Order: sequence, then structure tokens, then C-alpha cells
Amino acid sequence: MAADIDEQPAGYERLLSTEHATAIAEVAAVVADRRPRHVVFTARGTSDHAALYAAYLTEIRLGLPAGLASPSAVTLFGARPDLSDALVVGVSQSGGSPDLAEVLRVARASGALTLAVTNNPDSPLVETAELSVDIAAGHERAVAATKTYTAELLALLMLVEGVRAGDGALPAEERAALARLPELAARTLADDTPARLAPRYRFAAQLVTTGRGYAYPTAREAALKLMETSYLPALAFSGADLLHGPLAMTDPDVPVLAVVGSGPGGTSMREVLPRLGERRADVVVVGSADVGTTRMAVPDVDERYAPLLDILPLQRLALSLALARGEDPDAPRGLKKVTATM
Amino acid sequence: MAADIDEQPAGYERLLSTEHATAIAEVAAVVADRRPRHVVFTARGTSDHAALYAAYLTEIRLGLPAGLASPSAVTLFGARPDLSDALVVGVSQSGGSPDLAEVLRVARASGALTLAVTNNPDSPLVETAELSVDIAAGHERAVAATKTYTAELLALLMLVEGVRAGDGALPAEERAALARLPELAARTLADDTPARLAPRYRFAAQLVTTGRGYAYPTAREAALKLMETSYLPALAFSGADLLHGPLAMTDPDVPVLAVVGSGPGGTSMREVLPRLGERRADVVVVGSADVGTTRMAVPDVDERYAPLLDILPLQRLALSLALARGEDPDAPRGLKKVTATM
Repeated sequence: MAADIDEQPAGYERLLSTEHATAIAEVAAVVADRRPRHVVFTARGTSDHAALYAAYLTEIRLGLPAGLASPSAVTLFGARPDLSDALVVGVSQSGGSPDLAEVLRVARASGALTLAVTNNPDSPLVETAELSVDIAAGHERAVAATKTYTAELLALLMLVEGVRAGDGALPAEERAALARLPELAARTLADDTPARLAPRYRFAAQLVTTGRGYAYPTAREAALKLMETSYLPALAFSGADLLHGPLAMTDPDVPVLAVVGSGPGGTSMREVLPRLGERRADVVVVGSADVGTTRMAVPDVDERYAPLLDILPLQRLALSLALARGEDPDAPRGLKKVTATM
Repeated sequence: MAADIDEQPAGYERLLSTEHATAIAEVAAVVADRRPRHVVFTARGTSDHAALYAAYLTEIRLGLPAGLASPSAVTLFGARPDLSDALVVGVSQSGGSPDLAEVLRVARASGALTLAVTNNPDSPLVETAELSVDIAAGHERAVAATKTYTAELLALLMLVEGVRAGDGALPAEERAALARLPELAARTLADDTPARLAPRYRFAAQLVTTGRGYAYPTAREAALKLMETSYLPALAFSGADLLHGPLAMTDPDVPVLAVVGSGPGGTSMREVLPRLGERRADVVVVGSADVGTTRMAVPDVDERYAPLLDILPLQRLALSLALARGEDPDAPRGLKKVTATM
């Protein structure tokens, strides 16, 4: 897992290389040309969080309604929604789960434009979809997905920005911003704050993660990583949903990891932090915002790019905490790398 | 909270009365006439779970793509998705949260058909939307929503089935099935199993809820109720997502509440139960399926109606557990009845 985590800057570099950027641009150009009226994402586990990020990007950057589909409506209950106006995107590192392939098959049959985003170009998901994007993350050794998650984020970002550009080719300004990511990711990973903070949670019975907007998928993914590797019940809430109920649960014994950046999502999180303070919750801030007494600082970038950096210290925290708890993060109990569900 | 819970059979009866059924049928007829191409729900907290139920219904019963929108994309990031083909439904017991009203305002401006489903006909959400449905649940005394949740479920079910019928009028068979609900709900609430089971969780440090398809919103809502009233970290997973990662977290010290009915969702949950058994998790089954050693049994109905009954013992469990833990379920710490977020 440590090796997978460390490979992420190189993964960004690889996806941004001419070979992969060109392949993604070609797919983006086809999508732009077909002008879908809305976008449906389907995914599970870690990939669901990458899909959620892409849904925000789609609404904000493309002005297209976007949502995440529950595969079970199609696979268990026989729903056959008319998706002829839609782009349907399956996101899966393995591309192997039968339910996602079934959703794409049904969508394609109803006239949808279908796209598979995977780390396996030979997978059933890629065979089923009309279009595909290879996230090119290389073999992931650990069961807990790390480098495939961030590669999915970047591939989906490049895809959305390519669609926005119309012909798939990213504007120079966008290319320049993306080109900085490998170095910023390496710098983020060089900071050893996560390893120093991990003992703080050695005996935590639970944990809450929170963020808003683009940072919400980061909060969700951090919670999943902590659950998968440290068996720590970790609850993820959007900052707004937290105030609508689960805030009651927080007290001085509930650690909170708050993802707070410098854009609109981070600004709105600044209203959530005092409410957590009133409840005397133990808050650690992750991200570029200079707030809070204990922080895992991340370089300041446009909030749209922040998920590609903010998750890195959180992955390292999950790894360090698993080791501190005497667990084996490379072999979480009860899990397999490819999970087949219908 | 106990009084609110006990009023639910009467609430079903009231919504099914000619006065309210006619009002919902009229709204359904307008929706059917306008033929939206897809449906977007927006809600928070408990209402988000009612919206999730309605999204399953929409896909399965209407064959229309449905998704849940994140208000923050619109309210914080200025997303202006083109919703001219969409029905956009805001679900909120108070109708008072500014972010949902803003999503509906923006949707209406882009040409969407907009609908407010609330317990307050004079609320900002109703003023903003073109159409509205009154869930007529009466004043809810407790902060934790119970009777407004089930009233939202039933109102949304009547609405979807009315749209399916075309002219808003429910087919005789559907009316007959719905007419049984008040009595079935009363029978479910008369069973004191939840109060007897509550002490089992007196010292639980965490809890997992799970269900698939129509039962997944029930699992989500049960988890929220337990968090709001007993401050018990409760993690909800679809049965499929559980196998994709969080299964690692379950062990003999992790209680699991599994919602298992008799339809396709329940059938697929039967594959999840043995996996939980391998991990020696402590499983209590909620619903009509005759599986598991410890159960909160619920009358057998079509899986589509099961969420209107399955949540009842879970609400009572949350109430009893709060009391067993010495908490005041009527006044959860840190919460208000109307939460204003943007």
C-alpha cells in the first residue's frame, strides 16, 4: 500500500503524457460531439467517490445535470430507464464487477452513449461500453485502492475539461495547471504529518470526516480507507448534512477530519468548524485553508484540483494508523481485490 | 418522539383519504402530462432518504433516469445545469432550508418542472416550486423526524404511481394495497421486539446497517436515527457496497442490522448474510424475510411498500436505545428542528 501511494505523482505524470492525454482528448471530443443532455455515473466503493467528484465537475464545469445510479434498480429490479439522451459512465479499477457491466449494457441498448473508465483495458466493462478511458495506473498491489483512485480522478477531470473545450484539447491554462500536479503531489507526500498524527487515533472508537462540494468525495474516500485498513468506523458527511443531524453525535471523544480548501466549499466549511467547536469535537483540518490548530496542510490549488492532493495525506494516515493498530493494510480481512456483485 | 412514532398509522390513513389522495393525483396528472425526461431529487438528512426511495421508484416504476442532486454544486459553485427536460423535486419536512429553495429556483429558471414535497404548505420551498404536495403529517414534536419521514415516503409513492397511471388516479389494485398500510403499520408498531432488543446495544461502540434496493434508504434512515438520538456511530451500506470494502470492519463486536425483505433486494441480501456470518458479525434481521436467528419481523408486503413498514421497528429501536443510554430522544444535543444551510 505504501508503494502504491508513493507512485501517485508518477501516475499523474503518466496520464498527462502525450500518449494518454491524446487518448482521453479523443474520447472527450466524441462526447462533446454527441452532446448528451445529462450524465449518469455508476460505480462502487472507492470508484464511487471518483464518480461523485466527476458528477460535481459535470454540473459545475459542463452545466449538465449529473447523478449517480444505483446499479440494483437495473440489475435486481429490472428497471429499464430511457437513457437515450444520456452519457452513462462506468467507473471501476478492475472493470470486472458484473453489475456495472449490466448497467452499461442496458444503457447502451436504450441508446445512451456509454463510457468505461478503468485500469484494465481488457475488462468486461470496456468490452460493454462504446468508449473507454484507460487510467493507466499500473498494477495495484494493495487491496485498498489508492493510486487507482487518484488516477480515476485525474482521468475524469481531463475528460470533463476536454468536453468543455469542445474538441477534447485542453486550453493552455488548464494544461499548465495540471502539469503542476505531479510535483505538488510529490511535495504533499513528502510531508510526514500523517505519520506523526496517526498515534492520535490509536484508540479512537470512531471518526467523522466532512467536507463540502469537491471536498465531499475526499471525505467519503478517507472514511472508506480508514474503515478498510484500520477497521475504524468512519462516518463521512457533507458539511451541510452534518448540521442537519449527525452533529449531535460529535463530542470531545469523536475525532473529526475536516477537508477545508480555499474555494467556495472551504469557505462554507468555515461555518461548520465553529459548530464542531461548540460540541468540543477534536478537529484536524486537511487541505489548503489556514484554519484550525492541527492541520495536514496541502498546497493551495483551485478547489477543483484539490481532491487530487487532499486525499494523499489521508491515504497515508490510513496506512500509518493501520500499522499503529497492528493491522496489515496490504491484506484487509474479508476483502478481495475484485468484488463481483449483481 | 414516541407520540410522533405512534401517529404514523393515522398519518397513512390521512394521506390516503380522498382529500389528500385527490390533491396528489392532480399533481401527478400534471407531471404525467408534462412528460419529464428525467427526475432530479434534492433533499437533506432524513428527507434525503425519502428522496432516495423515490429515485428507486422513479427508475423502476416509471422507467425514467433519476438522481439526487448535491445542492452545493448550485448554491456554492454556481452550477447552472440545463434542467429543461427534468422534473426537479425538493423534499423537506420544514420546507425551510434556503439551499433547497435555491436549487428549485435555479431549476425553474432553466425550464424544469419543479415540485416541493413538504409538511409546511406555507414554506419557502412551496413558494418557489411550480407544484407542491402536502404530506399532511401534522406538527412533529421531536427533533428527530419520524412521522414526517414515512409521510414523505407514502406521498412520493402515491405520486409516482399516479404518474405511472397517467391521469394521476391510482389503479384499483394499487389503492387496495395502499389501503392495507395503516393497519399493517399499527400491527408492526404493536410488536414490542424493538424495546426488548434495545438493551443489546446499550454498550455497542458502533453499528452497521445494510439493505439493498428499496431497503437501502431504510438502512440509511435507521443509521441516522440511531446517530441522532443515541449518538451511536451507525454506518449504512448497500449490501453490495458492504462487500466492496467495509465488510473488513465487521467482527463479533460490530452489531449489524440487515433489512431483508422478500423481493429481489431481499433475495440478494441473502448472499450478504453468509459473508457477515463468516466474519462472525452480530446480525439482527429487520423485515419480512424469515432468515437469521434474531429478527424484528415486519408483515410481508411487496418490496416496494416495505420501506413504509420496515422503518417503524427501527425508529422504536432508536427511541428505546436512547432511553436505555440515558439520553433524551426529544432533544438531541446540538440540533434544531429547522436547519438552514446554503
